[in-house]
Amino acid sequence: MTRIDLNADLGEGFGRWTLADDEALLGLVTSANVACGFHAGDPATMRAVTRDAVARGVRVGAHVSYRDLAGFGRRFMEVDPVELADDVLYQLAALDGFARLAGDRVRYVKPHGALYNAIVHHEAQARAVVDAVRAYDPALPVVGLPGSAVLRLADAAGVPTVREAFADRGYLPTGELVPRGLPGAVLHDAEQVARRVVELVTSGTVPAADGSPLRVEADSVCVHSDTPGAVGLLGAVRAALEDAGVEVRPFVDTGAGTAEGAVP
Amino acid sequence: MTRIDLNADLGEGFGRWTLADDEALLGLVTSANVACGFHAGDPATMRAVTRDAVARGVRVGAHVSYRDLAGFGRRFMEVDPVELADDVLYQLAALDGFARLAGDRVRYVKPHGALYNAIVHHEAQARAVVDAVRAYDPALPVVGLPGSAVLRLADAAGVPTVREAFADRGYLPTGELVPRGLPGAVLHDAEQVARRVVELVTSGTVPAADGSPLRVEADSVCVHSDTPGAVGLLGAVRAALEDAGVEVRPFVDTGAGTAEGAVP
Amino acid sequence: MTRIDLNADLGEGFGRWTLADDEALLGLVTSANVACGFHAGDPATMRAVTRDAVARGVRVGAHVSYRDLAGFGRRFMEVDPVELADDVLYQLAALDGFARLAGDRVRYVKPHGALYNAIVHHEAQARAVVDAVRAYDPALPVVGLPGSAVLRLADAAGVPTVREAFADRGYLPTGELVPRGLPGAVLHDAEQVARRVVELVTSGTVPAADGSPLRVEADSVCVHSDTPGAVGLLGAVRAALEDAGVEVRPFVDTGAGTAEGAVP
Amino acid sequence: MTRIDLNADLGEGFGRWTLADDEALLGLVTSANVACGFHAGDPATMRAVTRDAVARGVRVGAHVSYRDLAGFGRRFMEVDPVELADDVLYQLAALDGFARLAGDRVRYVKPHGALYNAIVHHEAQARAVVDAVRAYDPALPVVGLPGSAVLRLADAAGVPTVREAFADRGYLPTGELVPRGLPGAVLHDAEQVARRVVELVTSGTVPAADGSPLRVEADSVCVHSDTPGAVGLLGAVRAALEDAGVEVRPFVDTGAGTAEGAVP
Repeated sequence: MTRIDLNADLGEGFGRWTLADDEALLGLVTSANVACGFHAGDPATMRAVTRDAVARGVRVGAHVSYRDLAGFGRRFMEVDPVELADDVLYQLAALDGFARLAGDRVRYVKPHGALYNAIVHHEAQARAVVDAVRAYDPALPVVGLPGSAVLRLADAAGVPTVREAFADRGYLPTGELVPRGLPGAVLHDAEQVARRVVELVTSGTVPAADGSPLRVEADSVCVHSDTPGAVGLLGAVRAALEDAGVEVRPFVDTGAGTAEGAVP
Repeated sequence: MTRIDLNADLGEGFGRWTLADDEALLGLVTSANVACGFHAGDPATMRAVTRDAVARGVRVGAHVSYRDLAGFGRRFMEVDPVELADDVLYQLAALDGFARLAGDRVRYVKPHGALYNAIVHHEAQARAVVDAVRAYDPALPVVGLPGSAVLRLADAAGVPTVREAFADRGYLPTGELVPRGLPGAVLHDAEQVARRVVELVTSGTVPAADGSPLRVEADSVCVHSDTPGAVGLLGAVRAALEDAGVEVRPFVDTGAGTAEGAVP
Repeated sequence: MTRIDLNADLGEGFGRWTLADDEALLGLVTSANVACGFHAGDPATMRAVTRDAVARGVRVGAHVSYRDLAGFGRRFMEVDPVELADDVLYQLAALDGFARLAGDRVRYVKPHGALYNAIVHHEAQARAVVDAVRAYDPALPVVGLPGSAVLRLADAAGVPTVREAFADRGYLPTGELVPRGLPGAVLHDAEQVARRVVELVTSGTVPAADGSPLRVEADSVCVHSDTPGAVGLLGAVRAALEDAGVEVRPFVDTGAGTAEGAVP
Repeated sequence: MTRIDLNADLGEGFGRWTLADDEALLGLVTSANVACGFHAGDPATMRAVTRDAVARGVRVGAHVSYRDLAGFGRRFMEVDPVELADDVLYQLAALDGFARLAGDRVRYVKPHGALYNAIVHHEAQARAVVDAVRAYDPALPVVGLPGSAVLRLADAAGVPTVREAFADRGYLPTGELVPRGLPGAVLHDAEQVARRVVELVTSGTVPAADGSPLRVEADSVCVHSDTPGAVGLLGAVRAALEDAGVEVRPFVDTGAGTAEGAVP
């Protein structure tokens, strides 16, 4: 039977502010990318979303970012790689504290926003992220774009990699995402998005922006959480996958922080 | 043979800024209170000071604070206790990541500045600190003022406590510190400070501001690190203790993060 | 003809986050308390809300706060009064830059959240706020609770004062607000709130929590903006006032930043 | 008689931290680039340094930066130009509040650190800075590198420009600075630096790294303030200039915020 992981960004509030309906999303995803304080995510939010995720069997990932609260981590920053590695370690360890408290561990690292995009190509920053993850726990997978520098370097360093596809983003025939701002960059129709995800998961292809079939290999599919219809869209994707006989489960399927699990 | 721990605040820089001569201080203290990002302490500083401390056998403690970079954590904040506990957990876990990376663990928690002072009396905030430490690791000691609410609550909760004295602060006959701003609040003469510490450690008493002998029981003596003559003063204190036959060693004396140590 | 000013908090977003429907609220209020960056309010938000307010003839006030983004300025901070005055000046001047750019000026200062509450009683912080406003522009009014320390000190210093009532808060027979968390602290029924505001404005009294009539003198009525039904509630209040023949207009009614106005 | 302006970065502390000896530097410079809160500069520091500068007749400039306290504004950030303009306006207006309070005005804008470097070439960010300055006050000069995009765009927009040279930096034969990290990038010998500045001011040339004479036209010379020997070096520069008969005075020489001055 075919299987896939569904991930979304959670805990993206800060203090008085919230973005997504974390409660509803946790009932639909299998992996939760949790903000760690640098682009969003105050400690109280981190604790609550981590506790709720673990209680539902959703895997907790560290959604590490540049230190840029005002820009929500969406602005490239020319951070020195050594400092970037320390920034990643700080966020990762802080979230891991809450995950342990909830009876589990941080199960993966997914860079956020501009950092995610930068380390598709930026070798020095990609290496910094890999160095940080490996230093913290070499068994911790890194989630990234297939073909990205960060996945290549992680692979070379023996750090597990998770290839990610995007449910609601258009693809160029080259396999890159259609840049935001261009037509077809973001898909809003839930039915269309669900259909594409099922096709992607069952056949390994998805129609590119020009209609040609594009090969996309993915271990996890990301659905954006901070758009108005996010819950409905994610629900449609999950239902369509289950209707198609796809098993929706975490890419990390070792025991969930219990005695029999792989977590030390 | 009598023994005592010497602690000081380290890693109190942030980005471009530094305060103390961490390098020199690490050669003199046995316990380092390391800032965790809320009043000072960027990740690069945390990583460096933690690595250097562990390399020298100095114990690393989490110097947790209110979130107040502009005020250096020296302003009381009426933080909700539940949120305060989460803030403490976040800082503690983040520092512990760097301590593990250095081959050891965070060995104790010492609240900083206004939080330290608040939880002498503020029951709800004191309880929040104890709750956070116990949730993270019930074997982790809390450092505080003898007689404080936080030590009393820690004790009641089964959390180990460490009683702290201040080398360069004057005491009222009641055992409280002479408030800053009053004459005799801060002592600057290295020889006098050293003599007082030796007396305190060997006899359990120190002259109060009125000259009367005051009973002060301490497991650790704090020397301030951010004054111009801090290194000289700390050096004088350590030399005087050793001359008096006092063993200067960490209050935490389980194995130092090595295979045979108590660190899991 | 009776008249009243309606104020609400606007621009309370930060970067990616927003709180209220500023656009809709600007069509209903006559004075906008604009966050200045310390509890909310990034520069882009400040510029946009200030521009829109001035374009609609809504007066812009500086909603100054403790520096506490994580706590949204809702936590008391024991800030040194001299530093508090500087913090107020910084926020006030920054917002005034955007107000000038929009062709007007900051027309009043209304402290936010915990600072608002503190300076009802905290003399030193109240004086700091008054000092800052007077230093910046002694003709700038301060908005506060009738009977508060800040209005008393402003009055003594020759700084204009604006007495504020709360549309959707219950009052104790003493004139204080029913503390949040107690029954009747916050009123949610739009019709009831509108009726109370009309009574307050036309008769100078409002029923206290025990039903007894309470005398409340107000130059401006605050309607909270960050609750789900805020726009509807504010609309109901404004409509009821106009139906009752009350003129809803700014308490500051000098010319709106035009050549003939009082603004230099 | 030849004349020159000497500028340095002041007020680069934040809360508990300080960098330079502002007091001593204010006795030597004629223009002070004052940090405005984004890379350094809390309000209390801004108020104090602005007051002291105005009292000594030193001109106050807004040292505007990316929002990056942890990186001291030294890391390039891909900030959206519209938001960057708002960030510049915010900082400029906030500092101007303190300058008015001191009886003067902000007299110029000098971007800081990575922003300064970026707008040598980055057209969109350079334009954002120019737009912000012009929107605030079109008579306010912008300080920058001769030949930079920002000075070219300012000039085209009718905003006054000030060409800056660096006393303690080496130049390539192309007129660019020797990149940091390479030999000869930073000059430390006070006598050599002073000699170079005199030559630069009196002859309009300075020896490039290869010894060839380089033409450098400057209205203001920057001496770094945050190095250990900064005060001595600046003192040597100033003395050498005066010995050579050069008049050291602000490039802005309208009346100093007094009744007869040009400041409105």
